[in-house]
Amino acid sequence: MISFQCDYMEGAHPALLKRLVETNLEQTVGYGEDPYCRAAKEKIRAACGCPEAEIYFLVGGTQTNAAVIKAFLRPFQGVLAADSGHINVHEAGAIEAGGHKVLTLPQREGKLEAETLETYLQAFFKDESHSHMVCPGMVYLSHPTEYGTLYTKQELTGIKRVCSAYGLPLFLDGARLGYGLAADGTDLTLPEIAALCDAFSIGATKVGALFGEAAVFPKGAPAGFFTLMKQQGAVLAKGRLLGLQFDTLFTDGLYLEISRHAISMAQRLKEILKKNGCLLWVDSPTNQQFVILKKEMRERLSGKVGYEVWQELQDGGAVARFAVSWATQEADLQALEQALA
Amino acid sequence: MISFQCDYMEGAHPALLKRLVETNLEQTVGYGEDPYCRAAKEKIRAACGCPEAEIYFLVGGTQTNAAVIKAFLRPFQGVLAADSGHINVHEAGAIEAGGHKVLTLPQREGKLEAETLETYLQAFFKDESHSHMVCPGMVYLSHPTEYGTLYTKQELTGIKRVCSAYGLPLFLDGARLGYGLAADGTDLTLPEIAALCDAFSIGATKVGALFGEAAVFPKGAPAGFFTLMKQQGAVLAKGRLLGLQFDTLFTDGLYLEISRHAISMAQRLKEILKKNGCLLWVDSPTNQQFVILKKEMRERLSGKVGYEVWQELQDGGAVARFAVSWATQEADLQALEQALA
Amino acid sequence: MISFQCDYMEGAHPALLKRLVETNLEQTVGYGEDPYCRAAKEKIRAACGCPEAEIYFLVGGTQTNAAVIKAFLRPFQGVLAADSGHINVHEAGAIEAGGHKVLTLPQREGKLEAETLETYLQAFFKDESHSHMVCPGMVYLSHPTEYGTLYTKQELTGIKRVCSAYGLPLFLDGARLGYGLAADGTDLTLPEIAALCDAFSIGATKVGALFGEAAVFPKGAPAGFFTLMKQQGAVLAKGRLLGLQFDTLFTDGLYLEISRHAISMAQRLKEILKKNGCLLWVDSPTNQQFVILKKEMRERLSGKVGYEVWQELQDGGAVARFAVSWATQEADLQALEQALA
Amino acid sequence: MISFQCDYMEGAHPALLKRLVETNLEQTVGYGEDPYCRAAKEKIRAACGCPEAEIYFLVGGTQTNAAVIKAFLRPFQGVLAADSGHINVHEAGAIEAGGHKVLTLPQREGKLEAETLETYLQAFFKDESHSHMVCPGMVYLSHPTEYGTLYTKQELTGIKRVCSAYGLPLFLDGARLGYGLAADGTDLTLPEIAALCDAFSIGATKVGALFGEAAVFPKGAPAGFFTLMKQQGAVLAKGRLLGLQFDTLFTDGLYLEISRHAISMAQRLKEILKKNGCLLWVDSPTNQQFVILKKEMRERLSGKVGYEVWQELQDGGAVARFAVSWATQEADLQALEQALA
Repeated sequence: MISFQCDYMEGAHPALLKRLVETNLEQTVGYGEDPYCRAAKEKIRAACGCPEAEIYFLVGGTQTNAAVIKAFLRPFQGVLAADSGHINVHEAGAIEAGGHKVLTLPQREGKLEAETLETYLQAFFKDESHSHMVCPGMVYLSHPTEYGTLYTKQELTGIKRVCSAYGLPLFLDGARLGYGLAADGTDLTLPEIAALCDAFSIGATKVGALFGEAAVFPKGAPAGFFTLMKQQGAVLAKGRLLGLQFDTLFTDGLYLEISRHAISMAQRLKEILKKNGCLLWVDSPTNQQFVILKKEMRERLSGKVGYEVWQELQDGGAVARFAVSWATQEADLQALEQALA
Repeated sequence: MISFQCDYMEGAHPALLKRLVETNLEQTVGYGEDPYCRAAKEKIRAACGCPEAEIYFLVGGTQTNAAVIKAFLRPFQGVLAADSGHINVHEAGAIEAGGHKVLTLPQREGKLEAETLETYLQAFFKDESHSHMVCPGMVYLSHPTEYGTLYTKQELTGIKRVCSAYGLPLFLDGARLGYGLAADGTDLTLPEIAALCDAFSIGATKVGALFGEAAVFPKGAPAGFFTLMKQQGAVLAKGRLLGLQFDTLFTDGLYLEISRHAISMAQRLKEILKKNGCLLWVDSPTNQQFVILKKEMRERLSGKVGYEVWQELQDGGAVARFAVSWATQEADLQALEQALA
Repeated sequence: MISFQCDYMEGAHPALLKRLVETNLEQTVGYGEDPYCRAAKEKIRAACGCPEAEIYFLVGGTQTNAAVIKAFLRPFQGVLAADSGHINVHEAGAIEAGGHKVLTLPQREGKLEAETLETYLQAFFKDESHSHMVCPGMVYLSHPTEYGTLYTKQELTGIKRVCSAYGLPLFLDGARLGYGLAADGTDLTLPEIAALCDAFSIGATKVGALFGEAAVFPKGAPAGFFTLMKQQGAVLAKGRLLGLQFDTLFTDGLYLEISRHAISMAQRLKEILKKNGCLLWVDSPTNQQFVILKKEMRERLSGKVGYEVWQELQDGGAVARFAVSWATQEADLQALEQALA
Repeated sequence: MISFQCDYMEGAHPALLKRLVETNLEQTVGYGEDPYCRAAKEKIRAACGCPEAEIYFLVGGTQTNAAVIKAFLRPFQGVLAADSGHINVHEAGAIEAGGHKVLTLPQREGKLEAETLETYLQAFFKDESHSHMVCPGMVYLSHPTEYGTLYTKQELTGIKRVCSAYGLPLFLDGARLGYGLAADGTDLTLPEIAALCDAFSIGATKVGALFGEAAVFPKGAPAGFFTLMKQQGAVLAKGRLLGLQFDTLFTDGLYLEISRHAISMAQRLKEILKKNGCLLWVDSPTNQQFVILKKEMRERLSGKVGYEVWQELQDGGAVARFAVSWATQEADLQALEQALA
């Protein structure tokens, strides 16, 4: 059985695994102070066009979001996010466990809009009782969003403008950033993201690595960030495992190359589904595709092709999420095509 | 240059890496629900003689300690630990970040004594103002301790007796558990530890794996432990990486076998150091050796052999920690011998 | 100028102040262990028809809510509340500062409905990824609500039924409980609230006292509650000040008597406003009245009568909150009537 | 029976109660925005010689310490305190509940010494693994200390010098500050404390008020301090009760006057105890006296005079704490004298 259930079902891209094997018995110091981490950081800085960026490597997304947000906020502040944001829904209350409220705003296809943000902030500071309320202290976005959609350069610039007007740091969660950068028609590049954000993450867990997120602070990290990571249990003893993987991903453009492969697979998958009569639930340009599967199609796929049921529908149908990744092969799509036929 | 600075300078035991490579492109579900995690848990249950144990796999020690302790404590409680305990010194305040005080007690060579514990508890509950103080809610031990020493079965039984009398769960941090189980003369086995503790961890990061700690709850885990792990950022998306490594370590006794190798290396190292005139700072039966290095010896080792300076001494000497591991080779010891000669 | 801005603009009912003065130079032990606290607790138990209830006195509402909720929840859990609930809006993130998410549900005129709650809980536990989400661990209601509305006995019983089905403790925030108990037509009494809730508060700050909330646990308090109160800074050194005030309020039915007075003032106020052409925004049977004030009426009241602007409307009008209390006098209403004329 | 058990056994100084009674039915806005709070702040600023100071009124000491410390620290930091410090012992883990470790240092008669502090800080930042440890982020002192002792101007200046060298804010807990300022021979005045500290509290609960602590920030308060107070449940709805009491205490020097009375009572009490053969356990110049009571003396006092047993001694004796206050009368001392005779 082939599964499109999520984009973290395989191990790592072979090039990464190869380097782990080759260097396995080398001795290095721990906690990210090794030469591989240093080299990886240099390559990421170069890819971001941001030689001053401070970069830390963490294992997973929840701990990255929790550490970055805790580092920026003061105790009386909360973080603004789309109500569909990962930190609000699927991270088990990690932000609140750190003492901060997630202040939710309505979104459109997973995207927060500058106007929504501005309207909220204006109303908040006009409210006479606002000092009795959690003060917005930063803005969190996902790119791609939880629905696979992407901000345009104009949209992100608009949000940044509002953030600047209110003195709020902007943090972009890039758990699937590669698939955003490689999408057709996107006009947001790594250097532009680095120029617009105060912090962002470059996810590797879903883009070729065994695990790993790079937290990038283009203007420098908040004081004590390493210690905060340690406190959150987010420092890997054998830090070089992260360095080696990121170094490989950012050598000769591998991160983008494997992302582009996934995007082309996703476009093919979308066509297959559409050709078989599926309506798109969201029109996603990235590696996650959300479609409406009728009951009959679910039956045809049953036992042959896996996907994630996003939402059950009344007639036995479902909103389904199909995720492809760097590891998806043409043969997987053919299997899907056959099952649907 | 050879380094004995710590026991996490290399990657993984080749047998583990081999399995990661072999299974790399298999698809499995995430978050530890895969067959490899299930198999690994079965083998650990068998090794512990504890078929009812609940087991969770985490990436690192700090997050394991933080999650286990937070799961057991109520908000008005703190955790009792030796003042030298890892949670009190080198985890950046992870327990306090979770809202709980580490209540420290004096120790002897890193070991908490049942009598110390009992005296404290008696005095605490006799104190008329104790309801204004943090209430002791569980006991934390390390085995081996931070000084490489080991509890005897009698000592651990004594501590358990006090814990039971006061209704306190007992948690044993086994970040280097293998090296404790394999030590010469120890009378504490995995099944005995499982019988005496409410929770303990089996560390793999320092005993053959790329990373990984198994949190074992012989009598069942506290409610919601998985969600708490997720909240702490301690759930690995590709959970099978942990399952595969633990499954391999607990197949055909590999965990103990490589631990025994390290112990024999440690004993050889100890002899070499003693033969060259070093005094033992602590007499450790495990993989970490603490000795007093005179200034002259430090000069001889300089640039050739690495170790950790535990404490600078006034005359240019130092208390030094030498750590060996599953990866240490006879050749490493010869290099040390030569450097000292 | 007369103000109806809120219900805590004056000091205490004279009978309470008199007792504070009379006992001022007596010596008592601190922290609520004094005879006045004991006596007050007995009287509250009697009024609740609940001789087994455990009762603690705290100074304010935010600290009461924070301590009660923290005492019931485990770290992986959150508290369910109407999105208009005080803990979600006007307590500056106190619940999140304690590590827990406020899980919000839609409401009707401030009231959570049993069906809304049940639908949410069914969906939550059916969701396959629910172990990655904050687990609902208790239910919070306000009675009267933030809009002055009241639950009926049937409604509260319905909510309790859902809570019981899912094993969730039910906590009722009674910051203005007196005004709910004294309202015309309510069928919820103190004994019934005590029978249906696992915890509730009896607010005195807004009902005759200088300050004070009684946290009542009909089936016993969570372990360590006093220590948790202390940790939250919610224990008053001179605890008798709370005991004396509650003892007086619960002697000869003073709490209900002064609440009834406020209710009759509120009904008169409502009539005056309606007579002068105001539309009710919510039809509140308690001491807070929400009406729509047109621009012209705001001008007439300006400088003469104070109220709280709840929401600005587009035409210069506003939703206004008028609050009366135990301290409101007939003369105050006459002043309002004159100003409006 | 007369009791010297603590200094918060009575209500308030009659002058304060009188003002509460006189203003009882006035209407004011809540939360400390009233004219009485404003007036009190002006008088405190004048008494501190510090016209720029920002001042907030809180109800109790634990909440004041918790809010001030949380406001200054970043998540990776802890607070340095003497191991006997109130925040470390008798506040039920309030600082840890806020996420921060209390980093304890040895003390002499309750006093932290500049040299101890400096030695610790030098060693901390020299330690190569310090980024894995809780970073010292501020210094907490009590004045008077928990043993009734006082810092001299030179000592406090020395501590301030070390704080400045390491960029650490200095916070002085003045729960009994009046008794420190009024002590014979002290050379620390309010203006000097304001000049040396980044924050300090002026306690009123034990010095004439029903309750109340003023948090004074001579160089301005950390951002969002009011919201943080609210979050901690430390904002009193009827804030004027605090304003009225502090305004009265700082009118015509009442705070110092009643403190001086207590000091003269304490000196008389000390003489009585010494005359009757008690040894001083600490030689305290303030309102708390610590003496060694032999068994026989305890028997004579039994049922006649109360005190706090600080520590039981082996022969049936005890270290006893006798506390006097603004409310202690000559007759109380005579009763003690008679009982001892």
